[in-house]
Order: sequence, then C-alpha cells, then structure tokens
Amino acid sequence: MPVEEAPPPLAAEPEPAQDQAQQPAESKRPRIVIAGAGFGGLYAALALRPARANVWLIDRRNFHLFQPLLYQVATAGLSPGDIAWPIRALLRHQPNTTVLLAEVCGLDLRRRQVFLRYTGGPAQFQPETLAYDFLILAPGSRNSYFGHDAWAASAIGMKSLEDALEIRRRLLLAFERAEYSAASRAALQTIAVIGGGPTGVETAGAVMEIAREVMLRDFRSLDPRHTRVVLLEAGERLLPAFAPSLSDYAQNALRARGVEVWTRSPVTEISDGGLAAGGRRLQAGTLIWSAGVSASHLGHALGAPLERDGRVQVTPALHLPHHPEVFVIGDLAWCAGRDGRPLPGLAPVAMQQGRWSARNIQRAIALGPREGSWARPEAYRPFRYRDKGMLATIGKRAAVGQLGRIRLRGGLAWLIWVGVHIRYLIGFRNRFMVAVEWAWAYFTPHRAARLITEERRSKPPAD
Amino acid sequence: MPVEEAPPPLAAEPEPAQDQAQQPAESKRPRIVIAGAGFGGLYAALALRPARANVWLIDRRNFHLFQPLLYQVATAGLSPGDIAWPIRALLRHQPNTTVLLAEVCGLDLRRRQVFLRYTGGPAQFQPETLAYDFLILAPGSRNSYFGHDAWAASAIGMKSLEDALEIRRRLLLAFERAEYSAASRAALQTIAVIGGGPTGVETAGAVMEIAREVMLRDFRSLDPRHTRVVLLEAGERLLPAFAPSLSDYAQNALRARGVEVWTRSPVTEISDGGLAAGGRRLQAGTLIWSAGVSASHLGHALGAPLERDGRVQVTPALHLPHHPEVFVIGDLAWCAGRDGRPLPGLAPVAMQQGRWSARNIQRAIALGPREGSWARPEAYRPFRYRDKGMLATIGKRAAVGQLGRIRLRGGLAWLIWVGVHIRYLIGFRNRFMVAVEWAWAYFTPHRAARLITEERRSKPPAD
Repeated sequence: MPVEEAPPPLAAEPEPAQDQAQQPAESKRPRIVIAGAGFGGLYAALALRPARANVWLIDRRNFHLFQPLLYQVATAGLSPGDIAWPIRALLRHQPNTTVLLAEVCGLDLRRRQVFLRYTGGPAQFQPETLAYDFLILAPGSRNSYFGHDAWAASAIGMKSLEDALEIRRRLLLAFERAEYSAASRAALQTIAVIGGGPTGVETAGAVMEIAREVMLRDFRSLDPRHTRVVLLEAGERLLPAFAPSLSDYAQNALRARGVEVWTRSPVTEISDGGLAAGGRRLQAGTLIWSAGVSASHLGHALGAPLERDGRVQVTPALHLPHHPEVFVIGDLAWCAGRDGRPLPGLAPVAMQQGRWSARNIQRAIALGPREGSWARPEAYRPFRYRDKGMLATIGKRAAVGQLGRIRLRGGLAWLIWVGVHIRYLIGFRNRFMVAVEWAWAYFTPHRAARLITEERRSKPPAD
Repeated sequence: MPVEEAPPPLAAEPEPAQDQAQQPAESKRPRIVIAGAGFGGLYAALALRPARANVWLIDRRNFHLFQPLLYQVATAGLSPGDIAWPIRALLRHQPNTTVLLAEVCGLDLRRRQVFLRYTGGPAQFQPETLAYDFLILAPGSRNSYFGHDAWAASAIGMKSLEDALEIRRRLLLAFERAEYSAASRAALQTIAVIGGGPTGVETAGAVMEIAREVMLRDFRSLDPRHTRVVLLEAGERLLPAFAPSLSDYAQNALRARGVEVWTRSPVTEISDGGLAAGGRRLQAGTLIWSAGVSASHLGHALGAPLERDGRVQVTPALHLPHHPEVFVIGDLAWCAGRDGRPLPGLAPVAMQQGRWSARNIQRAIALGPREGSWARPEAYRPFRYRDKGMLATIGKRAAVGQLGRIRLRGGLAWLIWVGVHIRYLIGFRNRFMVAVEWAWAYFTPHRAARLITEERRSKPPAD
C-alpha cells in the first residue's frame, strides 16, 4: 500500500454532520480524528463522550471486532455476529461523534490532515482529506510472515473475520474431502498450527475438540479420532510470555488432548500441501498462522523512526515526539512499561492507552488553544499501565493465567478466562449469546457455526 | 451448466463406507440416493432411518438451510448459523446413511447412476458416478429473471446464504455511502424489492424496520426516516396466492409502515442504479429480487417433458413416468393437488413429499426385488397433500395467514407465524437462539448481525 504517496488534498472536506453544523460553537471546538475502532480507538472514542470536541472515528469496517475470540469463529464455535458489534450502534448516543466507514491511508503531519479511502465507495468520494486538531492513531497490526509473503496464501493468519471464516472453510472442507478420498486422508486430517503463543495454543486445543468430540460420529469412512493437530513453536517452549511452569502445564494439557507439540521448530518452508520445520516435513491439509504480527503500515507515513517490528516510539504521554497533537496507541505504539521493556500487543494495553490519550486530550482542551494549536503537552500525564495479567485457554476446564507473581492453571484459570471474556465482550446481547453458546458447547457435541460458505473473493488489504 | 453432457462414467465407485463394507448383507440391501438436502431431501433421509437400505444423501453444501427465514439474514436480524445446521450432525445417529458434499450434475436413467461433482474437491475426485436402486431428486429451485439473466448482477435473489449476505452487504453499505455523499443520498437510501409474494412482503417490511427503527440514531448526516422502500408487483395485488382481503391488509400494513407499494408494475429494465417498471423509473441503491424462481436445471437431464417453469410432471405416487425407481419431489416436481392445480413450491409440500417417497420406497423394499429391480409401483400409494396453510409476516404484530376458509390477520397471525417458524427450525439450539434474537429485536433497536463483510467471490453456480 503506497502510504507515502498521498493523494492531492482537495478543498472540499466531508460535509459536516447536521448536529454539528447546527452548533454555532463549531469553530470553537477542536476536531479529534481517531483512526481505527479496535480496542484502542473505540475506548478512546467512548472516553471522549463528555469532551467539548468534534470526534471522528474512522474504520474501514463497520464493526468493532473482539479479536481474542476470533479463533472460536475459525473453529466453528461462534458466529461472526457474536464477536462483532456495529460501531455506529455503540456510539449512537454520543452526538459529538461521527463514524466514517473509510480507511486512513496516509497523513500530512505538517498540514494536520489525514487522507481517506472510502470502503466500497465509488470514485467520486476519493481521495478526500480530513483536517484534525488532535489525531489518535490506533490502526492495529497485521499478519507478518517474516518476509515470506508467499506463505500467506497457504497459511491463513487470524486477524480479520474473513481470515477466520477462511480458516473455518478450509478446516471443514478438508474433513469432507478426507471422507471420500482414502489416498490423501492422512494429510487432509492433519492440521498444522504455526506459532505457540496464546492464539496458537487456543486454536490447537479448539481444533482438536471439534475433530474428536464434535465430529466424532459424523463420518462413515474417516475416523475423526485419527486427526493430527501439530502445534509448531520456533522457540524453546509454548507461551514464552508466561512463566515456564505454565508453559509446561499448557504443553502437557495439549498433549493429553492429543495435540503434538513441536518446539524448537522454526518453519522454513510452507506450501499448500504442508511445511518444513526444524528439519522435519509435515503434510497437512490445513495450515493456520499464528506466529507473528507486525504493526500497521501506517507507521511508515509518520516519518518517525520505527522499531524492528514496525512499531513507533512514543513519548511517555503516548504522543509522537515533536507532535503533541498526534497520539499513537495500541499495537502501533512502542511504549515502555515499568520494567523498561515494551508493552505487549494486548487488548488491555490498547484499551487503557485509548482512555489515557482521550484524557490527555481533554486536559489540553480544558486549557484552550494557543498559537493556532490545541495541543498542550504541559497538561499531559505520562501513561501508566495497570497490568491485568494474561490468560490462555487450552480447552474445557484447562487454562493458564498469570498476574504478577500469581500463577493459575486448570479449572479455576479456565473459569476466570470464561468470565473475563464474557465481561469484556461489547454489548449485553453478545455476552448473553456467547454464554449460551459456550454452555451449549460444554454439554453437547454441537457447534453453532459448522458452515462451509463460499471462498472469499480475494486477499483483504494488507493493513 | 451443461447437465446433459455427462462425464464418462468411471469404473470406480466412491469407496463404500466402513460401516457398510462390514455388513455382509450389503448386496441384499438396495441403495437409495437422495439428491439435495433441502426440506424434501432431508425429510426423506430422516424418514428412511429404519429402512433396510444404504442411503446416500448428496448436497453441494454441508448444511441444511431454513429458507423461509433467509430474508432475516439479508436484513441483519439473524446470523447464518441460526438458520443452517450441518447435515452430518443431523444424520449422525443414522448409520445406514452416508452424507456426501457434492453436486449431482447429471444422471443416466438407463444405467441407474448419477454423476457427481465434488464441492471443493481437486481433479482426482471427479468425475465420479454413483449407482442407485432408488433415486430421490430434490434439487430445489433457483432464481429466475424471466430471461433477463443480466439483471442477476444488479438485483440479488434470495436463494442461498451467500445471496442473503450479499444483500445485507449492499444494503448496509448503501447507508454508509449515503452518510458521506449528499449528492446521491436520495438514491442510496432507496431500496427496491421486486416481487410481491411472501418473500417480497416480508423483506420490504424488515428493511423498513431496520432503516427506521434500528438505525434511527446511528447517522449524523443522513436521516434514516427518509428511507424509501418500494415494493413492486407485476400483478393486481400483493400476495396473489392469498385471499384478496388479506392482500389488502398486507398492502395497508406495509403502507402504514412507510413502504410504497407499486402494483401493476412489471419491471422492464434493471441496472445497478435503478429500474424501470410500469412506465415509471426508480433510482435505487439496493435492488432485491423476489419475483420468481424456476426449477433446478437437473430437470433437463431427465428426458421427460417439462412444464413451462421447468418442473417435471410426476405420477400421483411422485415418481417419473416409466421410471418407478426415480422419485421427484419439492420445487422440481409438478404435482397436482386436490383441485387439479399444481402444488406450490412451499416447505410443507416438500417435507410431506420427502416423507411420502421414503414410505413408498420402504413399501417396495418390504416386497423385495424382482427381475433386477427393487421398484414395485404396485406397492406405492398416491401422494395426498395435507394443507398446512400459508403465512406471511409484515412486521411486528402484523401478519396474514390462510388455511382453507380460515383467514387471519394482525397480531394473532403474527404470533402463529413466530410459533410455526420456531417450531420448524431444525435443532433445539437454533430454536432457542432465534427465539432469543427475536425477543431481543422486539424490545431493543438492535440487530444481531449488522456486519458488512467482504464481497463474495463470484456468482454461485446457477443451480
């Protein structure tokens, strides 16, 4: 995506919202543009509800996605609608906020404007620019194949709803094909999950559950109990961010469920039919990529030095150096925690940074503008992350959790995992529905969404 | 689809199921092949549970779809998983039945075999043939544009899940585009529903509800109350299969909800931007086709005379003339009712025909084979349709219903509509979830699945 090539800014700005146009004080209020409605951007927008400002929340999708449960869509446990919620509906009672279905494809820091590309819009809408007084950049991250972009076609990542639906399609279709093809049955019944972080561990456990429990009696020729799930990790152990004792527990719990765990197995080759890793070859009908993400391409448009993973160094108050009006949060931000190491790309980090940047902006607004700028860095406070800990589930009654020195494993950690995920889902309806689906899945060998729908049209945009 | 061009039959049949291979009596049991797992085919398979036969149920999708509620997926009220259920899971406790994810693309009546095309299967699986002793053809129907096939790209029909998701995508995207495009706002906020049968009436009502109630406060520039929904009917009145008084009620109820009803307006032209009908032009951002279906192409492969709508004349016992081993049921069958007129393409007709053909086959099996054939037409009984009546809903607390001389309208008809649709959904989970979604939608301005997901890859196969 050529982000540096900014389209020529047009004179015309998007028509202001009616509510805003009716307010005579429009010119007295700063405009806050938020790029991205993930955990960071959405929580920033929600925190700006009382702000005397005009807020524009821009995302190329019309929904906020609860990414931590995306792997359950990929494994047919939940429907897309259960973990997504329309952004407009979330902000309908916030008259200072306008939602725009568009992508921020570049920006001009000097002129303080972003360039937009409208989702599904015909040519007359684009290019378009939107000026800002404050900018909150929260574009998230994307799948990273460590330079092997060709692997993306064979090993689907897990970042978007379409990714998850494509994994679901391939996984279910592989079993259908295995049913009538004895010759390639063994390979078709093999699933490789690449990357031993929380997503990889959770996916491997869920895949084994659907194969051995849900589909157990559904076929006549193939035996779902012969399903092989191989979880590959390049490093020494699974869940490297957790304590070693929890890694051991996770590895044993997965093995007890029949998952093969290959550690010290960096993948060196991937094709449609399988992979090579750590000197071994594996034929697999379905390949799932959960080995790495890198920050959004939008970082390249900032002219600031980037870390090796594409993240942008921000000040302790979460803004760009030299640009106190531009905040960078979530997966794009390289922000040191208390121990000096960068904070991980987790939902709680993004949520807290979103709220924090919103509060810093409100502190500046309270002081009023000065010399043509609303940014007042002297009013900002440095971000402090309140560690909420980490959780990862392996399957029914098995999970690990870590908060500081507290380490949990087994049934209690699993119950906390269930409770936390339902708690943080957006909207009462989704909480209720997911709770029902999980109760249903716990007691019956059924899953909500075992549907093979059509192949997606194309690779989604890279960012 | 070139159904007549049958691929060369191969010697190899699909590998028999393990369960069956283990049965020494395999050769003594007839093989029943069912093409299509809609209402007709699925209910036939379920009714064959006690049959001493090997049953093969073939569908090109892995799920049974509850088509009467498809319009609710198109209008974001339900998720795909709520109205679809994996065929394998439905038949998992029926060991005499094998499910195959494939399309019956042709057949050879003389050799008693069908030709298969495997869904998503690579070349080595196809072509393939499957021999039968009995065949139940239940392939359903497809959208028909009365010879104007080019209209299909602009006005999406409502036959498959992908159809419904594409309508949802276009509908929601039109409102997003209207938000930032004042110039084309009026057209983008106009939805044309073509065809005034039950599907058209239900869709028009649901679209108006989502626009005026669900999205009422979600936009800043556009006013959802300015949404125009135009329901076009070529004939004199809506719901021509119902009594005129019920047509009047439906028309008035739709108008009270703001839907424009254009009767005597046969569509003469359709493009992406709008349509011409009855001498008038209409600019519309979304066009929905519910004006007609015609029977599956598979009818052409039978060599029997077809009715004008592509349906196949069957005997009173539901089989092909001269082929007592081939049953044709559901939307493909032209079967006279008690009044001599053909039975309509409704779910209850297909369900009853599915069960009836299964029973006729079981009567023949009880007599045993004769001269190389299991078909025993002397054992068959003529099909008698038990009229379950017709229902159509307009919106909250408004529906019409007709059973013989009983005519219902308003709140009671609506309650019956709700009850019947929940009753006939497959699976307790789906019944429960749909009931919750509807209760939720009744009391709140929210919908389960207001998601704009990616455009589908291509037109689905025509059949």
